[in-house]
This record gives sequence, C-alpha cells and structure tokens, in this order.
Amino acid sequence: MEKLGIYFLCATLLAPVTPAADTAPESASIAGYTATASKTEQEWETKFRALPDPANLRAYMQRLTARPHHVGSPYDKDNAEWILSRFREWGLDAKIESYDVLFPTPKERVVELVAPTRFTAKLQEPTVAVDPTSSQHDEQLPGFNTYSIDGDVTAPLVYVNFGVPDDYEMLERMGISVKGAIVIARYGGSWRGIKPKVAAEHGAVGCLIYSDPHEDGYFRGLDYPDGPYRPKDGVQRGSVMDMPVRPGDPLTPNVGATKDAPRIPLSQVETLTKIPVLPISYADAQPLLEALGGRVAPEAWRGALPMTYRVGPGPARVHLKVAFHWDQKPLYNVIARIPGATSPDEWIIRGNHHDAWVNGADDPVSGASAVLEEARAFSVLLHQGWRPARTIIFCLWDGEEEGLLGSTEWAEDHADELRQKAAVYINSDNNNRGFLAVSGSHTLEKFINGVAREIPDPETKLTVWKRLQFYRLANSPAGSSAAEPRSRPDLRIGALGSGSDYTAFLDHLGIASVDIRFGGEGDDGAYHSIYDDFYRYTHFEDTDFAYGRALAQTAGTAVMRLADAALLPYDFDDFTDTIRHYVDEVQKLARDMRDQTIERNRRIDEGLFAAVTDPREKLLPPAKETVPPYLNFAPLENGLSALQRASEEYTRTVAKAGPGVSSRDTAAQLRAVNAKLIAVEQSLTLKDGLPNRPWFEHQIYAPGFYTGYGVKTLPAVRESIEQRQWKLADEQIVRVGKVLENAGEAIQSAAQALNQAN
Amino acid sequence: MEKLGIYFLCATLLAPVTPAADTAPESASIAGYTATASKTEQEWETKFRALPDPANLRAYMQRLTARPHHVGSPYDKDNAEWILSRFREWGLDAKIESYDVLFPTPKERVVELVAPTRFTAKLQEPTVAVDPTSSQHDEQLPGFNTYSIDGDVTAPLVYVNFGVPDDYEMLERMGISVKGAIVIARYGGSWRGIKPKVAAEHGAVGCLIYSDPHEDGYFRGLDYPDGPYRPKDGVQRGSVMDMPVRPGDPLTPNVGATKDAPRIPLSQVETLTKIPVLPISYADAQPLLEALGGRVAPEAWRGALPMTYRVGPGPARVHLKVAFHWDQKPLYNVIARIPGATSPDEWIIRGNHHDAWVNGADDPVSGASAVLEEARAFSVLLHQGWRPARTIIFCLWDGEEEGLLGSTEWAEDHADELRQKAAVYINSDNNNRGFLAVSGSHTLEKFINGVAREIPDPETKLTVWKRLQFYRLANSPAGSSAAEPRSRPDLRIGALGSGSDYTAFLDHLGIASVDIRFGGEGDDGAYHSIYDDFYRYTHFEDTDFAYGRALAQTAGTAVMRLADAALLPYDFDDFTDTIRHYVDEVQKLARDMRDQTIERNRRIDEGLFAAVTDPREKLLPPAKETVPPYLNFAPLENGLSALQRASEEYTRTVAKAGPGVSSRDTAAQLRAVNAKLIAVEQSLTLKDGLPNRPWFEHQIYAPGFYTGYGVKTLPAVRESIEQRQWKLADEQIVRVGKVLENAGEAIQSAAQALNQAN
Repeated sequence: MEKLGIYFLCATLLAPVTPAADTAPESASIAGYTATASKTEQEWETKFRALPDPANLRAYMQRLTARPHHVGSPYDKDNAEWILSRFREWGLDAKIESYDVLFPTPKERVVELVAPTRFTAKLQEPTVAVDPTSSQHDEQLPGFNTYSIDGDVTAPLVYVNFGVPDDYEMLERMGISVKGAIVIARYGGSWRGIKPKVAAEHGAVGCLIYSDPHEDGYFRGLDYPDGPYRPKDGVQRGSVMDMPVRPGDPLTPNVGATKDAPRIPLSQVETLTKIPVLPISYADAQPLLEALGGRVAPEAWRGALPMTYRVGPGPARVHLKVAFHWDQKPLYNVIARIPGATSPDEWIIRGNHHDAWVNGADDPVSGASAVLEEARAFSVLLHQGWRPARTIIFCLWDGEEEGLLGSTEWAEDHADELRQKAAVYINSDNNNRGFLAVSGSHTLEKFINGVAREIPDPETKLTVWKRLQFYRLANSPAGSSAAEPRSRPDLRIGALGSGSDYTAFLDHLGIASVDIRFGGEGDDGAYHSIYDDFYRYTHFEDTDFAYGRALAQTAGTAVMRLADAALLPYDFDDFTDTIRHYVDEVQKLARDMRDQTIERNRRIDEGLFAAVTDPREKLLPPAKETVPPYLNFAPLENGLSALQRASEEYTRTVAKAGPGVSSRDTAAQLRAVNAKLIAVEQSLTLKDGLPNRPWFEHQIYAPGFYTGYGVKTLPAVRESIEQRQWKLADEQIVRVGKVLENAGEAIQSAAQALNQAN
Repeated sequence: MEKLGIYFLCATLLAPVTPAADTAPESASIAGYTATASKTEQEWETKFRALPDPANLRAYMQRLTARPHHVGSPYDKDNAEWILSRFREWGLDAKIESYDVLFPTPKERVVELVAPTRFTAKLQEPTVAVDPTSSQHDEQLPGFNTYSIDGDVTAPLVYVNFGVPDDYEMLERMGISVKGAIVIARYGGSWRGIKPKVAAEHGAVGCLIYSDPHEDGYFRGLDYPDGPYRPKDGVQRGSVMDMPVRPGDPLTPNVGATKDAPRIPLSQVETLTKIPVLPISYADAQPLLEALGGRVAPEAWRGALPMTYRVGPGPARVHLKVAFHWDQKPLYNVIARIPGATSPDEWIIRGNHHDAWVNGADDPVSGASAVLEEARAFSVLLHQGWRPARTIIFCLWDGEEEGLLGSTEWAEDHADELRQKAAVYINSDNNNRGFLAVSGSHTLEKFINGVAREIPDPETKLTVWKRLQFYRLANSPAGSSAAEPRSRPDLRIGALGSGSDYTAFLDHLGIASVDIRFGGEGDDGAYHSIYDDFYRYTHFEDTDFAYGRALAQTAGTAVMRLADAALLPYDFDDFTDTIRHYVDEVQKLARDMRDQTIERNRRIDEGLFAAVTDPREKLLPPAKETVPPYLNFAPLENGLSALQRASEEYTRTVAKAGPGVSSRDTAAQLRAVNAKLIAVEQSLTLKDGLPNRPWFEHQIYAPGFYTGYGVKTLPAVRESIEQRQWKLADEQIVRVGKVLENAGEAIQSAAQALNQAN
C-alpha cells in the first residue's frame, strides 16, 4: 500500500575504503552467535541465498495478478487458497485465518461541473490494447476512496494544493474560505486520508483528489504504455480511513474481527471521513480546474497541466455524489509456521500482504512473491537438515489496502501471545530495482546493516550495503568529505510511520519491526490503478526479477539470522544515538518556534506583512500567536542519560561474554535473557497510548496525526509542540522521559541476566 | 533592455523601529552640505518632488509608443525629434548626437521540422483585437536575434535546457553531444547571448531559443490579453551580440561611430555569433520538442508544456535559415544640458534609452518618461531660481536594444572629457509597481539610501526605503531576528553587471554609476514582444503611473542632491564593507572548489558514480580534475586593509569638517577635493582591462563572461578561479590587490585635500 517515504539506509568506515570493507570478514562471528554457531549459520545462509529463483518469482506474480484480487473478490479468496496449497506443498504447517471486516464499495459515483459550463467526469480507466489484464473491467473496482461517507453535494469548487494544514494557512491569508465548498486537492504532499480530514475540519462539504501530471504523469516521464508513468485517465484508488487514529476494521476497534466479535454500529465508527471524497484522473480534473476563477495559485501550488492554476472559489460549481454498499466482507490471511527447535515460543514473523486494489503486480505481489520464495527456500533447507532455534511465521495478509485490516485484526486477535512471544516482525510491501530501503526499530539498525553487508546487488555486484553507502554519499554535498556516510560505521535506517502491515506490530504491540524493500530506480506511475499489472511490471519495473531475488535474500537472511541466534541481536548503541537525535530535534523545534513566533509577531506589529503585499493581490497578515514558553526538557535528557548508561553497560557485557555467548548449555538462562530483550521494545510503549489516540502505544514512533504515513518520532512530545499545546508538551516530556528511563532499566536488567548466564 | 537580475535594495536601525526612523530628521544636514545649504537643498527638493505628474507620464508614453520605434525606423527618429522639441520647449540646451551603427535586420527566417514529421513554424505574433497597436505589422520588426550570423542549416535537434555551461556538463555526463546539431534552449538561466555562444563552443551549428510557459507564460499567470503574461505566439526579440567582450557598434570598437570613424570590415567583427540563432514562441517550439526522442530530460530541465521533455538528439531534424540585411543605420541620442553654476566641469548624468524593439511601453518608455518629467520639473525649478552647482546632463539614448549602441558610442566618443568631468551616471531602463531596486557603485550606497529615505511609496505611504527594508526582512528567515536588514544602517545595493546603458560609463570609463527602477509587483510577460505597448502597460502594469512618478522623484532627487552638494557625497565605509564581502567570497570559492574536487576525485576513484547510476539511464561519471592549488590571497587582503585604513581616515576627516563643509568660500579647494573623489572610482580601473576583454576596465564589477548580464564582482579573480586558471588567478589577485591599494591612496589623497580645505 505505502509508496511514499521510502527510506534508503547511511555511513562508512573510518579506515580507507577497500573492496572487502563492506563485507563481514569470514573469521568474524555474527553478533549473538558463538564462533562455531556463526560458522554453521554462515554456511546455511549461503545455501539459502542460492535458492531464490527469479523464474519462480515471475511465475508467482503471473498467477497472483491474473485477475483483480481485492478483499471480497473471488480471486482474492482463490489466491489465498493457492498460497495455502503452496505452503502445504512445501511441507509447512499453514492455515487461513479469516476475519469479517467492513469494506464499503461504490454503488454510485458522479462528478459534474454544473457551472459556468457543464462537464461530466468519465471516471473510467480505459483498456490499453497491449496490456491483457487492463480489459478486465467486470472484476475491477472502479476509482474510489474507501471509507468515504456517502454524500450528495453541489457547491463552489476551491483548489487547495495538496490539502495539508499549511495550505489552509495560506488560503486563510489569501482570504479564501472552503466553508461550504468542495475542495479539489492534488495527490502528494501527505497521505491521501489527510486531505478530506483537514478539508472537513475547515468546513468543506466534499473533497476531490486528482493525480497531477507534475507528481504523477507526463512531467516525470513517458506515460503508459509508452513508458511507466500514469496516463491521463489513470486514477489512484486508496483508503481514506482515519488511520492515524486507528487502523483495522472500523467495526471492531482493539479486538480481532472474528465472526462473533462484538461490533459497534456504523454510526459510532470514528475512522470514516466526515465528508464525501472521490479520486479522479487529471483528464477528469482539468476541466474543473480550468473553470476556476479567483486569484492565481501560489507558485508552489502549480502543477504540470497546461493552464494557469487558480484557486477559486468558483465560478466553477461541482456536483459530487458517492454512495456505497456498506457490506462486511471476509478476508483471508494465510499463515505458515516453522516451529522453533529450541525456543519455539520466540517468534520471528515475516509478512507481506497479498490483496490488491486491482491486479496489483507491484503492490503487493512483487513483495508477496519474495515471501513465498523465502518460504520455499526454507523448506528446501529443512529437508537438508536445517532447524531454526526459534519459530518462524510467514504471513500473507489480506485487506491491507483498505486499512491494514488483515494484519491489524490478526495482531489484535493474538495480542497477548504476540506480546509474550514475538521478537521481531519483518515486513515488505512492494519491490523494484535500485537501492536497499530499510526503516524500522533502531534496536535492529546494527543487525540489519550486518545483513545488508551479505547481499550482492544485482546491478553493480557490490553489496547492497556498499551501493547504499554510495547512494547516501552521492546525495551529500561534494565538499563535505567528513560526511556521515563515511564516518559512521552503520548506515542509518529510517523510522517507521504507517502505511503498511508493520503498524499493529510496532505501534500497537511494541514488537521490534523492520520494513525492507528495494527501489529508487523505478517509479510508481501505476500505483493503485488497473495498470499495476503483470504486463507493466515485466516491461518497466524489475523485469528480470533480479531485485525480487535480492529482497528474498535480504529478508530471508534476516529471518534466519534472527531465528538461529543464541542471543537476540538487538543493539542499543545505535538506538541511543538515534534517540539523542530525536531529543535534539524536539528541543530545536521548540526553540525555533519560539524565535519565529517572536519575530513574526514583531513583523505583524510593525505592519510588515501589509507593507510588502501587492495591493492587487490581497494577502492578509498571519494571525498573532502567543509566544511559546520555555519547556523543561530535563526529563527527556535524564531519560536519555539513563538509556545511554544502560546501553553502554549492555554492550560491555556482550563484549565480555565474547563472540556470541559461551554455549547452548545455558539455553534456559539465555531464554531468560532473550525474554528480557524482547521486553525492551515493549518498555517503549504505554498502555494508554498517545494523547487522543490510545491505540498507538509506542512512544518513539508513530504516523503523524496530520501526515498519515509520515512518521513522527517522539510523537507525543513533537506533535504537542507542533500543535502549540504547551501544557500537554510539558506533561508528555515527563511521560516520555520516564519511558526512556524504563527502557534503560529493561536493558540493564537484560545486561544483568546476561552477566549471570556467563 | 535588461529585465533580469533586478536587485532590491537591505537593513535597519539598531534602535527600536519608530515611524520616524526611516526618514532623515529635519534637523540633520545632508551629507556633503553645510547646515544652511542643507536646508535650502531640502526646500528645493521638496518643491521638486511635487512636480512630476502621472498625467504627463501617461501622455509621454502614449506619444512615444504610438508606433514601433527601433533603430532605423521612421518613428525612432520622429521620437528623438519630439524629445528634442520638448527639451527646447522647456528651455534646456539640447541637441541630437547621431552615430551610424551596424544593425542587421531579417531578410529571411525559416524554422521547419523536416523529420520525423513536417511542421513549419509560423514565426508571427498575431494581432490582439483589444490592443490597437498590436496590428501595426508593417512597421514591426519580426521576431529575431540581432547580430546572429546568416546561416542555413539542417541538423538533428538537441534540447539543452537553458544552454548554460552547467547544462553542457550534464549533457556530457548523459553521453550526448551537440556537435553538428541544432540546439533548442529555453529563455532564462542567463542572458540570451550566452546560449548561442556556449552552443557554438560545443560544436552546435544552429541555435533556437524559445519562451517556455514555465518561465514566461501561463504557468506564471493568465496570458495576454486576459492577463499580463506572454501568450503562446509571443516571441522575445533581443540582441545576441557578444557583449561580455564589448558592447556598442561592432564596426567601431573603442571609438565613437561617427560618420567618418574608421570601421573594421564585417569579417573582423568579434561580437557576432558563431552560429545562426533565432527566437521562437512556445507554440512554434512545442512540435519540435515533442518530436524529440532520447532520454527524459533531468527534472530541473522540464518546463510547463504538457509533454515529457526529452533531450534527443533526434529523431527530430530541423531546418533553420536566417539571412539579414547587413546595413548601417543612424541612431539619435538626445542630449540636454543644464550648466552648473559653480562647478560646470563636474557632470551629473542621467539617462534612459528611448528606442524599443517594437512599441516598447515598459521597455524603455516607462523609464524614459520619468527622465523627461525630471527634466520638465527641473526647468520649472530653474524658472523659480534654482541653480545647480554642477552641470546636469539628460541623455535619451538610442540603439540600446541592439547592444547599448547609443550610450556606448557617445561614451567612447567623449571618453576623455567624461573621464575628467563625469562624477556620477544615473540610469534607468523600465519601471513598474513595487519595490525600489538599486544597483550600482558601492561608493554611492550610503548616498542612495539617503535619497530613498525621502521618497514616499505610492501604495503604502511608507518611504520606499522602509518598504524595501520590510521586503528584505520578509525574505529573510522568520527566526533570525538579528537579520542584517535590522542591524545594518544602510540597505545593501546590488552590483551592476550589464544589460543597460550604465555599462560604458561604469565598466569602460570608471564613472560611479547607479541604476534605479521600481518593480517586483508586475511581470515582464511582454518583454521584447509586440504586446509591450500602451494598452497592455495601462491595463496591467503601473496603470496610474504612480510608480512612474516615484521613479522621477527618486532619480531627480538624487540628481539634485549630487548636483548641489559642496562635497560629492561618496562614502567609502559601505564600499569597503562590500569589498570585504567579495574578498571573502572569492576565498571561499577557491576553498570550496578545492574541497569539492578532492571529494569528487575520490568518488570517481571509488567507482561511486557508476555504482549509483541506474543502468537503464546511462550517466557517465564526471571527468577527474586537477586539485586546485592553494592560492595566495594575501595581496587582496593587504589591498583591502589599505582601503579600510583610507576609508576610516576619510570618514574621520569628513566628521571633523562638520556637517558638510565649512562654506563655499573654499570653493576652489573643494573643487580639488571633488576632483580627487571623482578619481577614486577611476582608480578602480586598469587600462588593459580584464583578461581577454580589455574594453572592461573596472576591476570590481563586470558582466560575467558566461552570464552576460549577471555581474561578476572582482571579475578577473573570480572568473579565473571559476575557470580553473590557477596561474592567471594568482596573477590577478596581485593586480587587483594593487588596485585596492591604489583606491586606498586615492581616498587618502582626497582626505588630505579635504583636511587642507578646512
């Protein structure tokens, strides 16, 4: 589902760079392994990485994308059963876990310009002759945004750029209100669900979202089928559920949507939109935009259509009507287990969704195929005698596109067991050519850097780690030879927001998670359209599935290494370094807001804004704001300090214990250590969650309330500052400071247990 | 002619801002005046500023723009005679000074796409029904670039973005050569004459320049006649003479183009293009661009046409044919004098050109009208008894558009006298609503700040100085309350490059110059087209001529204040501060180039560029370069140090002499001081000019060899570093350091003379 905010892993070695520097030397032990175990592990991993086969990945994709397979479609169920058969064929213990979820689908969709001229939007993606599956119109869901409410409104149109909060501040300065209006926003600038949410907060009665060719069409490159970019009638479907509040089935908050789960009535659902919303193509949007009068849009608001972008309101008046079938549909998660030989109650979970908006080759099958191939390869290893210490669970989720339904319901359904047993969740969602992109828990940063040093890049024959280091360097200024990618041993990984199936694991349950993909050389010009299909993927994306193999190799190596390690390879030094960054950032944010408010208020008092405004283009001064008070950041600093002490102690303890740990004789003691390590990530959560959104329990990472997919780190602190809630900010600093102290204690407790185990 | 690089004056007071802070207190004396003289001067200036009348400005514009009036046209001569009559009617001593100049005009123009399909460019700007003068096709020069050579070429097309040197570096990395090709560049990014110059250096055989709607059309706002922006068939005419080498009549380098001046043969002219060049509209360009294949243009290269921008070469093949009448034409400078009462041999010169590409309302009549109104107002003052101490000379230049012909030939013709007598040249070129834009000699920075504090802004009723300070503040970060516009007493003025008639005065003769305009609230969407006319100006630009009046008030006040001052009000502290900036800049430039070269070479050695390149989109590594040596900047620092000592001494001496100077009894002594002051700017010149372009004598300011209009300060040093000519750089640092020392000596000599005069 998510295509935004991919984060390419960054840093290098202090020593001069040599060809060997980016690979783990043969002699070195893998973290968490004894020397002997490390050697054995490396042999198994090497065997594993030879197994994933591009021909299989291609065959899986061809099968899984042959027909549209959204939740509730016949082919969605068919795919789930086919995947189940494969797992069983490979000898794995697999089953389908089904849930019943609310999934509204369109009954009626109308977009008409009713003044000053008339135009009726086509709302149809046409067949492309060379693309065989683009003609399956009977099975395709049309262009729509799910979890929009029903609505039938006629109102003046206003163009709101991306429709994010900053855009409404600018509208206010331009003296333009959207109260009673239908807004039209272009895709981009935030997750789509933010657009109707913010529009409704400002009094709009309807919301259109269109794909401007500047972000998503001919401006970027040749359009489909001449090239990979979105054609004029292409539409981006997608969910507009208010996921920053809570993802998952809207009728069963916090619990699994089993057949007999208690369900709230539709009227009590919190995560539907407040106004009707519909996505349209730019071919349908252009006549509406051209009919707008009013002032010329600010330069940053202008897209690539051949016209002068204007804001309105009117004279364009638009009729928007949407009505939905408010049905419950079954979804089918496919779950396969490889039981752990020695620690069956420590779980390594690997997942990717299998459902799509239409045929879904890139999203999600390019990722789901890798999961299947990892499972097949593991079954081969199992036949050769490999026995993972921990339990490995493969999950092919359903219902991700609508709002992470399958993964969320499963995680809520099995919450207690997961909190107890799940060590790591490894996610992917889609895949393309290019660079390794990793985001996740920073307790896994060092671990995943180690994995990345093992994987050959298909295009350069460097390791994917080395290629990524070069990418980071190439994107840092040419003059700064001391750039971090050269000086920091580990490349930084991104923080996770939302938009894919890791959300419930990380944010709700506090399970350390990573998301892994390759990308950066392709594009997403068919994202959530009927053209994201086998023909297009095999003509314009990872055409030979070389990066599909690299994804399977990367995620599979990570799973094996986690499943086999005597000591779970969390690292708290990189984590502490990252938290230091976040603590610095929120303090700078508060300082800058203070400085800026003082200066802006002074300018307002001086009459500066009026004085520099062209009287022919009215622009009101911004409103004066209270100068932010100084906040007491000491609790955060103290928490960080405790964390740092504990992290240093843990690292010393591991170093003292030698490479890995002494032996598996101390298995029971090590299990106790590992249990304490698993508890560290959960020590970063609070049961009552974030202010006003208790489902989000993690206190380090969350999707932004006004960004949707985009992450906010230290979210309770950062968002209360951003929203100028100073009292709340002070309270949250104390709470989060305590969380950091708790994490320090949890780490220290693990260190002490490890000390005793040796 | 020039419309690029307008520089809005910046800073403020250390004290809290009060309404009075931006005006000179009544009691304070004007710099260079005794207290008594200052009071008298202020009375005359106040009388003066009441005189300019928007109704007159409108009438002048209507008359002067009634028909096309380029060099050699009947109406050009007619306008000159009309202006002459006005000057005489106002009782001024006026005459026409005529020169005969080479001005090639089109005989034939053809642009055709000959493959893969056929298309013939229209090359015609159509009549706009509501615009009466747009239909005067018989008298309009068609769209062309003057001083292109004749040519008839058919070749593959390559899109080169703006066609500046950086673009060719990118082309080289993309593996694309323009050798034997016709390039198509969009307007913008540099002065137009750079485009064919650089294209020819890279082996192109022809050059098309088009107006992309992104820089100049619907992307910016509604197009003409619905709004002020360039319509689809609009063409930007303009000169492509190699003016960075030398402006003025190409046949008479360094001497006035009088009837009997020695003329070089056409074959020896250095400043023609090397390849044929023609400007076209985007309506004519779009079919050519759409026919290009090859790789997709880099993102920064893409304009606002509804297409995927590609680079080529081919399959588009283009036939370009241009042939010119290589005729000499007479030009008519109109020159009026008000003789100085006490110092007739010290001249204050005020100029603006009167010729246009077509009807030329904005460029140049909006500026020329102000000059006329200043002259009329002075004639009124003369009748009331005002007698300026110095001689005032009004110049209405002809032939500016082709290459600053009228002003350059006049300056060359009268070079000796000007070097001796000209104290200051004040230029304008065009005018619109908005903010004061001043560039010029920094010896006049403090002076012009003082003038700006006297002028009311028509839209805000603040002074134009205060409004500009607000503008500068508004464009500095909101958090930096210590921003320079608040902390520096004088707003900084820009440095002059080229593109208007100050060039010969400042760069060739070393006469302190300033260029003054208002702008920033309008646009230049009709620049050098048939639509820059009275209808459009009075509908979309300074419609009530309120800013025309402000320009006349500003420039006229400056002229009066300069003409009446006992002591010429140069200031060397702001000047020294500015030179310190430039010296820091060139040192940083050298340092950064060194750092960047080292890091880039390292990246090339490591294979980084190859590793981060998408193999489907070939991008070669840049070439390795020799690491720049450390340069010895001590001579510049020593020169600066000498300059600073002298400047401080001069300021102390003026302070000691009290407000202004003691009395006019010491007139002869003061004349000696003033002569020494005039000599200061000339001490900044070197007779053999800049490396490879001796005509440009000034060592602080010059148009860039590869920017054309854009200024390069400390040009000999800066450009030799930019062009990696390290030996030359070392030599030029010594030369320019000596120039700064000489300037220090000249200032010291003035200080000593002033000391003796008191």
